[in-house]
Amino acid sequence: MEGSIRCSANYVPLTPISFLERSAIVYSDRLSIVYGNVRYTWRETLERCTKLACGIAQLGISRGDVVAALAPNIPAMYELHFGVPMSGAVLCTLNIRHDSAMVSVLLKHSEAKVIIVDYELLHVAQGAIDILSKTMTKLPILVIIPECDQPRQGTSYNRSFPGILEYEDLIAKGKLEFEVRKPKDEWDPISLNYTSGTTSNPKGVIYSHRGAYLNALAAVLLNEMRSLPVYLWSVPMFHCNGWCLAWGIAAQGGTNICQRNVTAKAIFDNISKHKVTHMGGAPTVLNMIINSNLDVRKPLPSKVSVMTGAAPPPPEILYKMEELGFSVTHSYGLTETYGPGTICTWKPEWNDLPRDAQAKIKSRQGVNHLGIDELDIKDPLTMKSVPADAKTIGEVVFRGNTVMNGYLKDLKATQDAFKNGWFWSGDLGVKHPDGYIELKDRAKDIIISGGENISTIELEGVIFSHPTVLDAAVVARPDDYWGETPCAFVKLKDGCNATAEEIIQFCQKRLPRYMAPRTVVFTDLPKTSTGKTQKYVLREKAKAMGSLPRKSSRL
Amino acid sequence: MEGSIRCSANYVPLTPISFLERSAIVYSDRLSIVYGNVRYTWRETLERCTKLACGIAQLGISRGDVVAALAPNIPAMYELHFGVPMSGAVLCTLNIRHDSAMVSVLLKHSEAKVIIVDYELLHVAQGAIDILSKTMTKLPILVIIPECDQPRQGTSYNRSFPGILEYEDLIAKGKLEFEVRKPKDEWDPISLNYTSGTTSNPKGVIYSHRGAYLNALAAVLLNEMRSLPVYLWSVPMFHCNGWCLAWGIAAQGGTNICQRNVTAKAIFDNISKHKVTHMGGAPTVLNMIINSNLDVRKPLPSKVSVMTGAAPPPPEILYKMEELGFSVTHSYGLTETYGPGTICTWKPEWNDLPRDAQAKIKSRQGVNHLGIDELDIKDPLTMKSVPADAKTIGEVVFRGNTVMNGYLKDLKATQDAFKNGWFWSGDLGVKHPDGYIELKDRAKDIIISGGENISTIELEGVIFSHPTVLDAAVVARPDDYWGETPCAFVKLKDGCNATAEEIIQFCQKRLPRYMAPRTVVFTDLPKTSTGKTQKYVLREKAKAMGSLPRKSSRL
Repeated sequence: MEGSIRCSANYVPLTPISFLERSAIVYSDRLSIVYGNVRYTWRETLERCTKLACGIAQLGISRGDVVAALAPNIPAMYELHFGVPMSGAVLCTLNIRHDSAMVSVLLKHSEAKVIIVDYELLHVAQGAIDILSKTMTKLPILVIIPECDQPRQGTSYNRSFPGILEYEDLIAKGKLEFEVRKPKDEWDPISLNYTSGTTSNPKGVIYSHRGAYLNALAAVLLNEMRSLPVYLWSVPMFHCNGWCLAWGIAAQGGTNICQRNVTAKAIFDNISKHKVTHMGGAPTVLNMIINSNLDVRKPLPSKVSVMTGAAPPPPEILYKMEELGFSVTHSYGLTETYGPGTICTWKPEWNDLPRDAQAKIKSRQGVNHLGIDELDIKDPLTMKSVPADAKTIGEVVFRGNTVMNGYLKDLKATQDAFKNGWFWSGDLGVKHPDGYIELKDRAKDIIISGGENISTIELEGVIFSHPTVLDAAVVARPDDYWGETPCAFVKLKDGCNATAEEIIQFCQKRLPRYMAPRTVVFTDLPKTSTGKTQKYVLREKAKAMGSLPRKSSRL
Repeated sequence: MEGSIRCSANYVPLTPISFLERSAIVYSDRLSIVYGNVRYTWRETLERCTKLACGIAQLGISRGDVVAALAPNIPAMYELHFGVPMSGAVLCTLNIRHDSAMVSVLLKHSEAKVIIVDYELLHVAQGAIDILSKTMTKLPILVIIPECDQPRQGTSYNRSFPGILEYEDLIAKGKLEFEVRKPKDEWDPISLNYTSGTTSNPKGVIYSHRGAYLNALAAVLLNEMRSLPVYLWSVPMFHCNGWCLAWGIAAQGGTNICQRNVTAKAIFDNISKHKVTHMGGAPTVLNMIINSNLDVRKPLPSKVSVMTGAAPPPPEILYKMEELGFSVTHSYGLTETYGPGTICTWKPEWNDLPRDAQAKIKSRQGVNHLGIDELDIKDPLTMKSVPADAKTIGEVVFRGNTVMNGYLKDLKATQDAFKNGWFWSGDLGVKHPDGYIELKDRAKDIIISGGENISTIELEGVIFSHPTVLDAAVVARPDDYWGETPCAFVKLKDGCNATAEEIIQFCQKRLPRYMAPRTVVFTDLPKTSTGKTQKYVLREKAKAMGSLPRKSSRL
């Protein structure tokens, strides 16, 4: 329209950096970070992050360079979420369960110029650099983060490692007057998240400043956070940048309760001491809480809102969490959607349903949050929407500003993921008549037995409700007659006993007969660091078993 | 970064239309609008707005055309905030206090192709079109909105007026299959807001889809709204699109309680009946509440959050609102900042201050909300920031995505407003050491007496605290000796008496002597429809008085 002018007065590239700058004024003396005896205010956090950005820039890092981080949920990890982008660089957070070989692959792929590593993981980073040094001459600069919660007892690491720097020195050398390098274009990358675990070939998912800003606000609203929340970090910050709450908590001037190790004791202690209002965690974290020893439990000062995701929460886990005073909301998303992209928004009329029905609804993936423009279930072949009949299975697709820019250096994979203008998640599900979606399986997890689709999620939900079961996962076992049959891997609770036959009969009573597992293996389940069961490992095991003997294959 | 692809899967122009589309799924059966006996759900609101958009398109309206609206806070006015943008058009909401002459000027300036008008204001619109018909041949199409809350009693308007259409017919003729015309570029205009009242020459402020989206979310967070708020419409929707909450309430699936007339009785009735959680209003609305007759008052079902703005709330008003159970937050902004741009964020440590000190802090304008990137006080000559000393007066400047695109067809005014990459508000204020800003005056309101600056806001605050005073405004009276002296216009409460001398002495006891008014006039105060005192009217009156006689001019 005539009279419009676009200039710095009315157009500023969206970036979560602005949350920190604002909170340093609005919430200047409020606590930003608490970790053991360590305390920072928002003013201090802005100062430290500005100096950190300057320190990183002084290492020769320019706009668009990658800075990797390998650390648990400690204060430095939080600071890196601002300090790295403020230097103009892209933050690449690495999974702390990776070994040196994997880290070396990711450092090479991302072309990281710096790796900032927690002292406990120094050997992993050093090992990775050793591997790289065999084929590369220009190696990443190594920066170590010593424990900040206790006076350091001598040097706990090998200072003779070439070029090693200390995190606090980087900050000390930085200048407060450093001119923060905000993005010139909000589409510019802010972080790089390698997808973890469930596939064997990790991909570098690129997040933009725009997407991070919008998803941080969506996450705040999704979590029903008013200003000044107290957030307990049980979701790893290296995973989707803590579901974008590393930035979201800054937007609301909240307090970040950091913890190095996620244990039931640490969770109860922190909730009780700091009056935690919100936290998040995969069902494994919830499992850890409800199965914790009574002597580590403490009464909750008030209702704690828990966002769970990464896997659908089995009804039993939901019941028990609610009994302990947590209010659990179920969210679903992928690394490619900046973490949570949907939320199972609760409707007041559901309060009157029986407990079982409530838990069943709560395990639905739900509806898109504000950052996602459209969520749908589509037939992967025709690319048409499936009917909202709760029955027809299709692939979950997303469209919106909180979908990744693409996969780093893998245009082909990006194109495949964005077929026809939608992001194809690889997850299979149905749409209920009220528009809520429910996952049935990963495309590659679904079991096809005698032509029937068997949802491993549904089957796992039933197995989980068996009183002796602590953890369970179902995969396909190849079968000469049926094609595939369901094979359950089950971990029992301490001191509990059950036979395979009992589990199978338990399922047969509650499900169509063909859906019950034909094989039950009692074992520990291999997990990714984000709490997902590594089904590909189990699939290999089931494959190695071969077909069931013909006799027992009859239904 | 290599591997990125920008496409419809991951880049969607920001627009508040998406809030409605999402809420129609997520909150489908929740109440969207309540007005007397009228009730709509979010699913119905999306359907009605889609058909409305189609109906508007069928009138020949194309992308970028202007559709004007002249209506109080009725359901249709809410629907127009979505239906008009969904047709691709720009919504121009007109002040319902305007007369036909003014409306004709604005219709002509905006080149509105349609005007949609409430039946009570039909004569104003008809009069405006009559005026236009004298010089123009292509006149706006007139659409009337009959009262929807009662069976219509015959035709209350002149159906013979050429080309008149009915709002419900427009919707009835619309098709649900209409393809909503979302913006191609989020910078495209969504609405046009003519600045009201305090200046004589209204300017058309252009809002973009991007700004509206971001300010709606900022407004939700500013109001500390979780999902499903119940919002009472006491702020006119024609004013900054209801401080952008016309869109914000849709984002949170809230219920809009509409009311044709804002009276104390309607406010208390609606709060009590619908369990209102949030509302907004200029200090005049607050004044109406605290001075209401006891027989219209009803106990509040629970704390009601009230956002006030448009003028700094005098401490007395704040006390009394809190006593009645309201929780008042003070916000400040201009039409050019999409309504509120700052918020006086409350710090817990202020709870221990005496009541007077608390009210004084609460009347500060505060800090920028999330939509505004930077807020500052600058010297208008040097364009440098003033020190944060609570003393040095400068002009309030803004920078961020929730600053207007510009003034329609007035590039010169836009350029002036955006000098040096900031939006210059024309408001004068100081910055406190904690970064909170406090207004001292409009640039043109400040009184300069004997070389001393006198803040009319400060002086009005003192006059307001006099127990007999209902309303007050101070302007400059020309003075041969001092240049200017403060002249107070005061309205007393019903049944109260006070003399000019009493008011003057009351001020002299509480302020430096030179700041006390030299003249006190007891009168009704002229108001704009948004509750601002029309100071230019008072200034004319004070000017007409001429200089004080020399004798009484001594301090």
